[in-house]
Amino acid sequence: MSKLVIVGTVAFDAIETPFGKTDKILGGAGTFIGLAASNFQVDSAIVSIVGGDFPQTYLDLLKERNIDVSGIEIVEDGKTFFWSGKYHNDMNSRDTLATELNVLEHFNPVVPEIYKDAEVVMLGNLHPSVQMSVLKQMNKKPKLVVLDTMNFWMDCALEELHKTIKHIDVITINDEEARQLTGEYSLVVAARKIHEMGPKYVVIKKGEHGALLFHDDNVFYAPALPLEEVFDPTGAGDTFAGGFTGYLAKTEDFSFENMKNAVIHGSALASFCVEKFGTERMLNLDSEEVQRRLRQFQQLTQFDIELT
Amino acid sequence: MSKLVIVGTVAFDAIETPFGKTDKILGGAGTFIGLAASNFQVDSAIVSIVGGDFPQTYLDLLKERNIDVSGIEIVEDGKTFFWSGKYHNDMNSRDTLATELNVLEHFNPVVPEIYKDAEVVMLGNLHPSVQMSVLKQMNKKPKLVVLDTMNFWMDCALEELHKTIKHIDVITINDEEARQLTGEYSLVVAARKIHEMGPKYVVIKKGEHGALLFHDDNVFYAPALPLEEVFDPTGAGDTFAGGFTGYLAKTEDFSFENMKNAVIHGSALASFCVEKFGTERMLNLDSEEVQRRLRQFQQLTQFDIELT
Repeated sequence: MSKLVIVGTVAFDAIETPFGKTDKILGGAGTFIGLAASNFQVDSAIVSIVGGDFPQTYLDLLKERNIDVSGIEIVEDGKTFFWSGKYHNDMNSRDTLATELNVLEHFNPVVPEIYKDAEVVMLGNLHPSVQMSVLKQMNKKPKLVVLDTMNFWMDCALEELHKTIKHIDVITINDEEARQLTGEYSLVVAARKIHEMGPKYVVIKKGEHGALLFHDDNVFYAPALPLEEVFDPTGAGDTFAGGFTGYLAKTEDFSFENMKNAVIHGSALASFCVEKFGTERMLNLDSEEVQRRLRQFQQLTQFDIELT
Repeated sequence: MSKLVIVGTVAFDAIETPFGKTDKILGGAGTFIGLAASNFQVDSAIVSIVGGDFPQTYLDLLKERNIDVSGIEIVEDGKTFFWSGKYHNDMNSRDTLATELNVLEHFNPVVPEIYKDAEVVMLGNLHPSVQMSVLKQMNKKPKLVVLDTMNFWMDCALEELHKTIKHIDVITINDEEARQLTGEYSLVVAARKIHEMGPKYVVIKKGEHGALLFHDDNVFYAPALPLEEVFDPTGAGDTFAGGFTGYLAKTEDFSFENMKNAVIHGSALASFCVEKFGTERMLNLDSEEVQRRLRQFQQLTQFDIELT
C-alpha cells in the first residue's frame, strides 16, 4: 500500500452561509485532504500542529479513518489555528471574519520516521517554506509531490513560493491565483508559464466551473457537478486535492491519462463536501455513494461521437 | 435530407477587440447560425431581411454553402441592420457602440413555401413575436424547434417571450439570462423553472466555461475548449446554436443522448468562430479541421474509470 504524507492545517472553523452558521467546528486543509484521501486504500499520515484546546475526539475521527496522526504535534499550552468566514449569497465570494494563527505561527512540521519514504506527498496550503521543509525531510525522492497554494503567499512570500514549486510535480491552484502568479488572463498561457516554473502538471480549479488539468500540450477539463444548492464551499478545494492525490497514491499510475481519472475523483468528492457544513458530509460518506456520484460524472461528461 | 428553417438577423457588424478593429463586416445571428449549420448535410434556409446596401457577394457566400436565401427579403431603399461593439480586455464583457435597427424595425418574416414542412426550426435571437410568427407559418408541426433569446427581450417583451417559449422544444440561453428569467441563482433550479415554462430541453451557455444541457433530471456538461486567446467572441453563441441544431437536423435523432453529441458539435464549431474576426474563420473551415477539433473535445473530456 502506498504511503501518503499530507501536510496542512488541522484547525477550527466558524462558518456563516445564507443557510445558517456554525460554532467552532473541525476544519483545516490537512483535515479535508486527509478525509478525502481516506476514501482510497492508502497509508496516509497528516503532519500538522494543534493546541491543547483541540478535542481528542477530532483526532479519533481521523484515526478511525486509518489516518496516522502521530505527526500532528499537540502544543498543550497553545491554541489551535482558527478561521472564521462568511459567504455571500452567490457562494462564490466570502469575507474572512477572523484568522487566529495561534500555534501555526511557530509550526515546524516533523514527518514521522516511517513516512519519510512515502511515495506521495501532498503539500497543503501553508507558507511555502514550511512546505519545502517537509520535502527536505523525505529520505528518498517521492514519486509524486502535489502542492496547493493561494494568493496570500503570492502577496507575501512569492520568492519562497517560486523556490518550492521548482521541486514539485503537480500544483493545484485556482483560476484567479493562476492569473495572479503569471500575469496572464488566458488560463492556457498561464498554465504554460507555471509549467516553466517547475510543475509538470498544473491543475486549475474553477469552483462551480470545474477544474482543468494541463500537461505539456495536453489538457483535460472536468466539470463540477451542477448542484441545486451549495450549502458550504469550505474545504471543497482541499477535498478536491485530497481526492486527486489519494486516487493517484492508490493506483500508483502517474500518467496524464490516469490523472484525468484522479481529477474526476477529486471533483466527485468535492461535490459531496459542499452539501453540508464543514467536514460533516465527508465524515458520513460510504463507498456506494461515491460510486454513484462517479457514475453521475460519467453521464454528465461522456458522449459517443463516431469520428472518421 | 432534413429541412432546417433559420430565422435571424443578417447584418453588418463593426467590432473592436484588444487585437484590432474592423469596418462593417458580415454578421448577424442568422448568418452565424446558417454558416455553422452548413457544416452538416441539411437543406437549410435563412429567413431574414436586409437593405439595398447589402452586397450580393455576401448572399453568394451563403448560397455557395447551400443555404437557401430566397427567404431573405431585400428592401432596396432600406438599410441593413447594423451593430457595433467593443470588447474589454477580458473578452467577457463588451460595450455596444451602435445599434441601428434599420430594415429590422419592420421585419415580417416569410417562410418560403417549400420550407413550410421543415423538420427543424431554429429561431435566432429576435423579438419573440417575430419568432412566433415563423412558427405559425409552418404547415405541420416541426419535429424540433430551437429558440435562442437574450436579456433585452426579458426587459422589454417578457410577456411575448413567455408565450413563444411555450411552443418550443429547446431553449438556448446564457447563464446570466437564465438567472434573470427565473430569479434563481442556481442554474439547476433555473433550468427546472424554464422547463416549467415550456421547453423540454434547456441549454445554458456559459461562454469560456462551456454549456449545460438539461432535460428532466438529466444534465450534460460540455466544456469550452481552453484557448490561448479569444480573438473575437462575436457570433460564438449563434455558432453554437447553429452547430447544435444542424447536427440534430442531420441526424434526426432528438434523444437526450444524441443532444449531448449536438452540444459537443456546437461547442467545437464555436471554438473556431472566436479565432478570427466575425465570420472569417467559419467561411474558411474544412471538415477535416472539424473532425480534428472534435477529437480534441474527446481528449479534453473523456476518461476511463471502471465502476463497480
